[in-house]
Amino acid sequence: MPLSPLRDLARLLTRGGLPLGLCGGGRSAWPPQIFGGGGGPRPLATFGKESSTTAEGAVNMARPRAEADEIKVAVGVVGPGLVGKALLEQFRVQLPVLRARRGLDIKICALANSKRMLLSDSGIELSDWKDRFEGSSEASDLVGIKDHLLSCSMPIPVIIDCTASDYVSDYYQQWMESGVHVITPNKKVNSGPLERYNAVKKLQEEKHVHYFYEATVGAGLPVIGTIKHLVDTGDRIKSVEGVFSGTLSYIFNSFKRGTKFSDIVKTAKENGFTEPDPRDDLSGTDVARKVTTLARESGVGLELSDIPVESLVPKELESCSSSEEFMQKLPEFDDQMTKLQEEAAAAGEVLRYVGSVDVATGKGTVSLKRYPESHPFAQLNGTDNIILCVTDRYDPQPLVITGPGAGAEVTAGGVFSDLIRLCSHFGAPS
Amino acid sequence: MPLSPLRDLARLLTRGGLPLGLCGGGRSAWPPQIFGGGGGPRPLATFGKESSTTAEGAVNMARPRAEADEIKVAVGVVGPGLVGKALLEQFRVQLPVLRARRGLDIKICALANSKRMLLSDSGIELSDWKDRFEGSSEASDLVGIKDHLLSCSMPIPVIIDCTASDYVSDYYQQWMESGVHVITPNKKVNSGPLERYNAVKKLQEEKHVHYFYEATVGAGLPVIGTIKHLVDTGDRIKSVEGVFSGTLSYIFNSFKRGTKFSDIVKTAKENGFTEPDPRDDLSGTDVARKVTTLARESGVGLELSDIPVESLVPKELESCSSSEEFMQKLPEFDDQMTKLQEEAAAAGEVLRYVGSVDVATGKGTVSLKRYPESHPFAQLNGTDNIILCVTDRYDPQPLVITGPGAGAEVTAGGVFSDLIRLCSHFGAPS
Repeated sequence: MPLSPLRDLARLLTRGGLPLGLCGGGRSAWPPQIFGGGGGPRPLATFGKESSTTAEGAVNMARPRAEADEIKVAVGVVGPGLVGKALLEQFRVQLPVLRARRGLDIKICALANSKRMLLSDSGIELSDWKDRFEGSSEASDLVGIKDHLLSCSMPIPVIIDCTASDYVSDYYQQWMESGVHVITPNKKVNSGPLERYNAVKKLQEEKHVHYFYEATVGAGLPVIGTIKHLVDTGDRIKSVEGVFSGTLSYIFNSFKRGTKFSDIVKTAKENGFTEPDPRDDLSGTDVARKVTTLARESGVGLELSDIPVESLVPKELESCSSSEEFMQKLPEFDDQMTKLQEEAAAAGEVLRYVGSVDVATGKGTVSLKRYPESHPFAQLNGTDNIILCVTDRYDPQPLVITGPGAGAEVTAGGVFSDLIRLCSHFGAPS
Repeated sequence: MPLSPLRDLARLLTRGGLPLGLCGGGRSAWPPQIFGGGGGPRPLATFGKESSTTAEGAVNMARPRAEADEIKVAVGVVGPGLVGKALLEQFRVQLPVLRARRGLDIKICALANSKRMLLSDSGIELSDWKDRFEGSSEASDLVGIKDHLLSCSMPIPVIIDCTASDYVSDYYQQWMESGVHVITPNKKVNSGPLERYNAVKKLQEEKHVHYFYEATVGAGLPVIGTIKHLVDTGDRIKSVEGVFSGTLSYIFNSFKRGTKFSDIVKTAKENGFTEPDPRDDLSGTDVARKVTTLARESGVGLELSDIPVESLVPKELESCSSSEEFMQKLPEFDDQMTKLQEEAAAAGEVLRYVGSVDVATGKGTVSLKRYPESHPFAQLNGTDNIILCVTDRYDPQPLVITGPGAGAEVTAGGVFSDLIRLCSHFGAPS
């Protein structure tokens, strides 16, 4: 588009007082587009490259969604491990569908783990990303990734942190400050120091950068988004309570008369339901992180250390030097777990490892509790999570969400849905 | 901002090839703003009114979110009845909060029922909308409402249809064609003729207008949004099954040994849990509408008439001329319902009125079924809805959502959350 019609347009803008705007044009990669003032991210018109176009004529050349009208997103994935790998596979299958049906042009422009990284301007081919990634000789650089995404020709940069690393989450602020959005199943920021959490949330509010973390609680279950919508629409959370660990759900759903606690932990470990060291699950810290997150979502600014946690690791085994030693000694403590189980059963109850937030008292707790057989918590199967939310509107009957709350596929699905949510904030069709 | 710096800016745009855009300025109501090209709806900078500003200087005057940067939404509410009234009350309390915290400037610029309407450019004061509305002498005009919203100074127009009227839903296409978004708990489009449904969905895809209807199934429970996110992220729905009528949930949750079916229907009617004529609930049509909706969300294009529905209205009472006559004669049929209840109880089971969609066979059904006491459907209380969704990822353990699925407050909450979702598509902060 030559200078002269643009000037005409400038005149139209200033003289006519039209609430219109112009983007792109000139030598820019974007074709000129007219925007309505104030609200809509969608252009009212996208112009062709005809050099004789006058401003007035151009406005009449409005056309429906074209390639230039796609939502272009440059994604960096940090931590292509279990969840990251599942996510990249979901991307491989589904990104072409999203592009064709919804106009979302999402490209994976960076991959990194703690050692190396792979950058691309045009998007990494996902059919053989693993070979390419492992063949990369570039050293990992979490600032470099951000700079690369910002330099890509895709205007929406986002980093998806699929690690569980506190080191990585320390970069969120820096990334977000420079306009990069963050999506993560990593619980470290939301359950870490309030100061860092508040700084990230403040950036989210003030800088129009987005920070989504649906998969930090219940994996792909719609927990965080649901609570946020309740709060946004003026409902008031009274309490949130649930079974938030797939591992501990499995263990107590299986712990019935005639079974041994240590045998169940062993089976869970063998099936890959536990962390490499099962003490990481049995200590309750993971559940406490989720309780901290849910408390903050409900408006209670707790620190992880504020939450009393009933650890299921016997005191005597805390200092075992290896998980092998721990697993070997665990049977010595079967009797005391069996006693708890039998006492509960005698009262027609079951044991469940539960996290809860009480908004009125501002307290969170993590503990082993007993529930009658008819209670929703007693009805769980496998590695199901359950979340029970009492609010002004959902009282006395709570809103309850149940389902698999762990596993690479469902966690990746939760992360992916955050990415689609991010696109909506940039005008994606619904 | 005078013409000359704007011209400088135009030069910067064309000569520098910068992917920047300019909105507002001159005599427009919007202060001049610089936009990044391509993606973000948020301005990079909003300028003050200093007349000596040069374009270069102006860019340096970027400031954080200002009033001009608010998301401005003009809402028309059609049908201020039970749900509409609850919604307006939620708006009264929460809209100031959303404006202060999230920069959402949402104003109610129109109200209408079948008789009259009330229009306002600057937003109807919500503390006494009822008096104002009832005092309005303007006749209802569903085209006039659209024209009014489009003429308001708020750039995002939306009509919220809180009626259950097929007549009103016939206007959606016309509204959406002219750029007005539609939000509704009204089931008529999603369960009505496929042709009209497809036309509305096509507009949603092609015209960048939005159509949200979370509250059509399960009221405020996150059902529609969850299924949509699963499908969008590449999961495949296999089946959706549940108790979708708060009324019929209440009736069968209460229908235990020693109770009479007709007594329970009577209590439900007295508590306002049924439609004025309980046959409207007992016929199963409402559940069939929800099954049709869920089938379409899952990718199965069913018509309402494709769904076999087991009606609970005895054949002999279908032709009763009034609900009074129906209620009077219903006790004659208690024996046959008691027989069903006792047969189920003898097998350790309960009766539940269930809707289901089987994606593989492409079929939907609505019928009275028996479930063992341990089944999630047997655990319901009050007017709870439950939805159980089996997908590629959620199999064999389904994703389950339970909670109050009827009532003005929770339904209004579901509608309100759609409005916030709409704002996200226009760049609202998350």
